Amino acid sequence: MFPLPDEYARAGERMYALVAELFPVCRSITGDGLRQTLRRLQREAPLELVEVPSGTAVFDWTVPREWNIRDAWIANGRGERVVDFQQSNLHVVNYSAPVHTRMHLAELRPYLHTLPDHPDWIPYRTSYYRESWGFCLTQRTLDALPDDEYEVCIDSSLAPGHLTYGEYLVRGRSDEEILISCHCCHPSLANDNLAGMAVATELARRVRAREGQLHYSYRFLFIPGTIGSITWLSRNRGAASRIAHGLVLSCLGDRGPLTYKQSRRGTALIDRAVEHVLRRSADSDRVRAFVPYGYDERQYCSPGFDLAVGCLTRTPNGEYPEYHTSADNLSLVTAASLGASLDASERILEILENEGRCMNLQPYCEPQLGKRGLYRATGGTGPADYEMALLWVLSFSDGKQSLLDIAERANIEFRTILRAARDLEAHELVRQVAAVPRPESNPRSAVMTVSHSLHV
Amino acid sequence: MFPLPDEYARAGERMYALVAELFPVCRSITGDGLRQTLRRLQREAPLELVEVPSGTAVFDWTVPREWNIRDAWIANGRGERVVDFQQSNLHVVNYSAPVHTRMHLAELRPYLHTLPDHPDWIPYRTSYYRESWGFCLTQRTLDALPDDEYEVCIDSSLAPGHLTYGEYLVRGRSDEEILISCHCCHPSLANDNLAGMAVATELARRVRAREGQLHYSYRFLFIPGTIGSITWLSRNRGAASRIAHGLVLSCLGDRGPLTYKQSRRGTALIDRAVEHVLRRSADSDRVRAFVPYGYDERQYCSPGFDLAVGCLTRTPNGEYPEYHTSADNLSLVTAASLGASLDASERILEILENEGRCMNLQPYCEPQLGKRGLYRATGGTGPADYEMALLWVLSFSDGKQSLLDIAERANIEFRTILRAARDLEAHELVRQVAAVPRPESNPRSAVMTVSHSLHV
Amino acid sequence: MFPLPDEYARAGERMYALVAELFPVCRSITGDGLRQTLRRLQREAPLELVEVPSGTAVFDWTVPREWNIRDAWIANGRGERVVDFQQSNLHVVNYSAPVHTRMHLAELRPYLHTLPDHPDWIPYRTSYYRESWGFCLTQRTLDALPDDEYEVCIDSSLAPGHLTYGEYLVRGRSDEEILISCHCCHPSLANDNLAGMAVATELARRVRAREGQLHYSYRFLFIPGTIGSITWLSRNRGAASRIAHGLVLSCLGDRGPLTYKQSRRGTALIDRAVEHVLRRSADSDRVRAFVPYGYDERQYCSPGFDLAVGCLTRTPNGEYPEYHTSADNLSLVTAASLGASLDASERILEILENEGRCMNLQPYCEPQLGKRGLYRATGGTGPADYEMALLWVLSFSDGKQSLLDIAERANIEFRTILRAARDLEAHELVRQVAAVPRPESNPRSAVMTVSHSLHV
Repeated sequence: MFPLPDEYARAGERMYALVAELFPVCRSITGDGLRQTLRRLQREAPLELVEVPSGTAVFDWTVPREWNIRDAWIANGRGERVVDFQQSNLHVVNYSAPVHTRMHLAELRPYLHTLPDHPDWIPYRTSYYRESWGFCLTQRTLDALPDDEYEVCIDSSLAPGHLTYGEYLVRGRSDEEILISCHCCHPSLANDNLAGMAVATELARRVRAREGQLHYSYRFLFIPGTIGSITWLSRNRGAASRIAHGLVLSCLGDRGPLTYKQSRRGTALIDRAVEHVLRRSADSDRVRAFVPYGYDERQYCSPGFDLAVGCLTRTPNGEYPEYHTSADNLSLVTAASLGASLDASERILEILENEGRCMNLQPYCEPQLGKRGLYRATGGTGPADYEMALLWVLSFSDGKQSLLDIAERANIEFRTILRAARDLEAHELVRQVAAVPRPESNPRSAVMTVSHSLHV
Repeated sequence: MFPLPDEYARAGERMYALVAELFPVCRSITGDGLRQTLRRLQREAPLELVEVPSGTAVFDWTVPREWNIRDAWIANGRGERVVDFQQSNLHVVNYSAPVHTRMHLAELRPYLHTLPDHPDWIPYRTSYYRESWGFCLTQRTLDALPDDEYEVCIDSSLAPGHLTYGEYLVRGRSDEEILISCHCCHPSLANDNLAGMAVATELARRVRAREGQLHYSYRFLFIPGTIGSITWLSRNRGAASRIAHGLVLSCLGDRGPLTYKQSRRGTALIDRAVEHVLRRSADSDRVRAFVPYGYDERQYCSPGFDLAVGCLTRTPNGEYPEYHTSADNLSLVTAASLGASLDASERILEILENEGRCMNLQPYCEPQLGKRGLYRATGGTGPADYEMALLWVLSFSDGKQSLLDIAERANIEFRTILRAARDLEAHELVRQVAAVPRPESNPRSAVMTVSHSLHV
Repeated sequence: MFPLPDEYARAGERMYALVAELFPVCRSITGDGLRQTLRRLQREAPLELVEVPSGTAVFDWTVPREWNIRDAWIANGRGERVVDFQQSNLHVVNYSAPVHTRMHLAELRPYLHTLPDHPDWIPYRTSYYRESWGFCLTQRTLDALPDDEYEVCIDSSLAPGHLTYGEYLVRGRSDEEILISCHCCHPSLANDNLAGMAVATELARRVRAREGQLHYSYRFLFIPGTIGSITWLSRNRGAASRIAHGLVLSCLGDRGPLTYKQSRRGTALIDRAVEHVLRRSADSDRVRAFVPYGYDERQYCSPGFDLAVGCLTRTPNGEYPEYHTSADNLSLVTAASLGASLDASERILEILENEGRCMNLQPYCEPQLGKRGLYRATGGTGPADYEMALLWVLSFSDGKQSLLDIAERANIEFRTILRAARDLEAHELVRQVAAVPRPESNPRSAVMTVSHSLHV
């Protein structure tokens, strides 16, 4: 990982503390654990909590009954809990129906989930859409269970209630929106996805602090996976049509390199912006094509919506051994990783906010930069990076190529190209031109706003 | 080579037996050896034998006189045959004019062809279009010939007669045709091209068995190389215009990997279909760009026709040392290679028959597959291959992308994607859309026929 | 380097002699050294010398005062010259204002330039656009200077005068022009750019010898870098609009491989022609994308002009350690390198002159080449290179693909494809078609002139 600016190192510590605080809560796709989590996030950014009643039809789906759980255990003949929800909320298959009975081990076995290859880890399993129950435990615990009769209890409820999600909109000058979405339905799993929630929350705090300087409006969604995005899309088709760019944030706290999964379009501005940041970063240049499996980008990118939404992670879902197990805990994530993920996210937003095209106002031969103090006086040696950025912006500001196009072509960071464009504009050597949609990538592409950036 | 299904292993044995039976016959571009060969193939599939008179103008060419040969030899002073056509029909330059004379070795030498680098092999040489004669022999035989006078005899005839070819059309629902073409003019050479003839014959048998279920009509041509395809094209310009896709089959029996030479177009559906099959096969992924040399694809792809016809081989012409020598014999080809070549050919035809586009009927968010029994009930683990195929078909069935596009993008075999598309259609989640020609590849591309495939 | 034809070996010797003769002259962007150099070149080719007065506005720039220098030195307390312009004209910062004074070493230091990493080399430095003065010396000399008072003298003048450049136009049948440009402003530096000047001069001599056979008009410019091309472009906007293709020649004498920097367009015919020659050459296949830094292509490719002008060098500017130092001397360049650079340049021009499209007049099946004596009589072996060239031209002469397209696709040298096209035209199998601009590359592309080539 590259050395982090202090600002991001500090933000990393703050995010890690939030992850640690929320880790013990038993979240699910509905219920009080989810609600309690979102309320905690309201202390960081003023999200609105939306409650959608069970039974509401959302496209091909139905909002399920609300699930709440108080306790669950398997106890042996001596009444000792051998598997105990109080020790880890992963012990219960998420969304288990209530049960209280006695069973012999042989009868119980089909309800027990383990990871034979990782005998000390508890798996994370769910059964949202088929009423069922079950326990998850370590293989070692299972192996030690005598062939006995056990008391089995899941003190849960599945009853009409609500699906809860958090939503926060920061208005910019434009109605066009940038979507930041993360799932909040996983119980005690640190990387997937308390890490994503922490980065999204910090980002919301920081975008809010820039209110009034923003081109885009920013919409932050904290939702249960799959059913949450389906529910939001079902209820917000107008807002969905205003989403110009978006990111699903997940698994952003582990030590692995940043990884980007492209939107279904593959060549949208969000794809190009993330790829630019990742390629220029010592942290990673891992970009992957869209696949119709993963997180809520599956819904945002479904062909009826086909939004320009990609997914930013460190190690992606399913690619680290601790994924969906009790080993995805507080030791898997680090403050430094969270801080670097935030830094990359902000560089991406900086590109989205400032992408645009300039026109060279003196296109016949190079203008004499030296007489404007923009070029070194003594010749014979090569130009510095910033001088090269000036030459690149002049050479390719023909109204067709954007600042990101130029940055990519020049292999210079967007931020340096942006500074050069602004300096040339100050010297009336280029001017920004009215933004024209880029039909080959994102039809709702950024209006150029050279005068307002996020960071520079 | 990958383990062959029994069906193809058995077909391989049958094809090898056919190759062995036809190996001794002295074929040429005209004459009784060719005729006898085609008559033998009629016992496998009902080809029609077409006879075109010598002297017929076919584009820039003329059908040559018919060549027949009874015997040929070089005998020494003691009357012993030192080179004998009865031992190998390769000993005579194919299409040699008759000759009977006595010559000293020095005079004879310009008429003798050998392979100094392979002193035990007899080369295969021809002189179709300039009247001439000659003998081919091993370098070792030549080196052993004393400087003596020899009796030289070629008991052949070059006389007005006919050029013969075999043709078989299996009618499908569409007038559009798939062409399968192979050359039959080589004498005792096993791989080039008894192997191609055997695979084409077996394919004809199997396509015939599916009559009534076929979208395309299938035309099988068994022709002498170059002059045969020129003759057929010259006489069948209407039929040629109906050829939507085609394959020239040759050299399909050796132990080398499958190799595909693209059509002149390079991006036709036949090119994409073969490339998909070869890439997904453990047998090979060797694809080569079109070059205007090779087999009859030279004529089918000539710029006036520019048909979507590629060439499928194992080791291509000229790239194995035994090519065009007596070492291209029955030990060079194997039943397993022939069987695997047939299997690949059928997978290619399956794509051509079933390629098409679907439209997702519930494009807003994913439909809930679980309630339709198409998705596993317990969450927390990743999807199986078939579940992924369902998601891919749903995500990309936007009426623009075809099943082959999706298979390529998903890196899943076409056959699995096709099964997913059919299951989704059965659940009314997708429907096939009217086929639209794909201008970027083959303007005569396949109509989608999800309900009728070859194999599934 | 590949074995050079004698013709180019001899030309290489001649060019080396010219480089050696001009090496001692103190050139700059104006002044008598430049003028004297151009007059010497007039003995090789009849260039016109153009004089542009100081103070003339040329786009954003102004023609500077003329600089001339007679002598310059730093002398120690005993009157001994410790740095002496008579020993090397690199000792004076080029364009230094006159000065005559006495200074202590400490005062003098800011005016002294050295190369600490190459303690025996004198750097080359300039100060054209900010009035200043300075000396360049070896680090070793500097280190040996006692802390003393020195007499410092630069006997130069900066006064109203002229900027001089050389121009030579050879008229072809078309008004469209090929530009050959080289910079002539560097003092005693052999590779950068006496080598480029020598190759351009030899090329001018040779193009002139073909007057009457040329399709294009050829414009040769011998100019001071940057200000020279800006001045020419400013005064010749009409001629600039007629430039169809162009090359900046520089650094063509060192032992490194040929290197091509693409035009800003990147896919112009000049780019494709040079890339073809370099790829087919044993000498190099180094092609680089356009960057807006380098030689006068910066001006020709500025977005207002965007001319199809690339830059041909051996080792590019800044990439050899001797660049812009006294080590860029006569031992860095060789006659063989100069000769090979000339050979490559002529192959490039041959493509530009002869590029065009043919139409196959017998496009249905292959014509019978054998009956026209264009194909070997005995079959069974593969075709020779020239026969393959015939087949390629026939197969792809569909009026859409050019000879260079075919050469690239066939991986056969353009020259061989051109010969095949001419032979097929002589047999009335193809004919050249009216040239149509190629919009995807160079809108001012070559008219086909199969009957007039440079070399064949």
